[in-house]
Amino acid sequence: MAKTSFELASELGQLLLRKKCSITTAESCTGGGLAYWLTAVAGSSAYVDRGFITYSNKAKQQLLSVRSATLLQFGAVSEETVSEMAEGAAKAALAEVAVAISGVAGPGGGSAAKPVGTVCFGFAIRGKVSTQRLFFSGDRQQIRQQAIDHALEQCILLLTEV
Amino acid sequence: MAKTSFELASELGQLLLRKKCSITTAESCTGGGLAYWLTAVAGSSAYVDRGFITYSNKAKQQLLSVRSATLLQFGAVSEETVSEMAEGAAKAALAEVAVAISGVAGPGGGSAAKPVGTVCFGFAIRGKVSTQRLFFSGDRQQIRQQAIDHALEQCILLLTEV
Repeated sequence: MAKTSFELASELGQLLLRKKCSITTAESCTGGGLAYWLTAVAGSSAYVDRGFITYSNKAKQQLLSVRSATLLQFGAVSEETVSEMAEGAAKAALAEVAVAISGVAGPGGGSAAKPVGTVCFGFAIRGKVSTQRLFFSGDRQQIRQQAIDHALEQCILLLTEV
Repeated sequence: MAKTSFELASELGQLLLRKKCSITTAESCTGGGLAYWLTAVAGSSAYVDRGFITYSNKAKQQLLSVRSATLLQFGAVSEETVSEMAEGAAKAALAEVAVAISGVAGPGGGSAAKPVGTVCFGFAIRGKVSTQRLFFSGDRQQIRQQAIDHALEQCILLLTEV
């Protein structure tokens, strides 16, 4: 059976404590849901200091130093943008780990190149940035929920390796 | 039957559109859950631009300009602090409406003066700030969930009046 968001967040929390890492979040389409689950774990203040909800392009630029050229050329939902979001969040929060999410949760906003369900993830872990572009099926809530769980799972995987 | 978080967020969204107001959030104990529900509503980008998750005192000071003297004298969970959080968030996001939440979600962190379940709310609506201090029963998740729903309900009430 798939683990719940809470179970994933607890597992990630244990890992962060063991690796002596703090974590921050830069969320667009999930709107704070990733940070909500991270902080669902009692004692999470040991590794969570702050999180950024950057729904608009302007917020991504002002809070996370995403470049306007990147947004113009690749769009808000792109591996290029989440890469800069993750890097910017890690820097702004002075965190060892930063997770960025930007996607098309729908029902509007989709295109042929980026249909509803397209979600990009950026992970900055001790200065090393990696990105992913995935596609999730379902309605707005299901897409957001799958994006949150994937971010938690992937962060566990990446952090286990370092 | 009580309305769900999604129903409350939808109702608040309609009201924000009608009043031509944007909204921002400054969350401590709810860790992004309020913004998560606000953005669960399709089209919420019309009134949500950004949100702040300020879990630590340092984050409250750096992102929301909460004064260290206020934190020292009254603590992070106080009407004084959420008042400054709401004002600071409204200013930083250039939003007509800002909602701040800071509380003791537990299971640790409670005291005689501020037992687990104590949650303070700050509402800045077009420059007018009001605060509340409430007590919720239940476990960590239940306290956080009740805080989110209360914030949505109270914001609907306050915004209906302006």
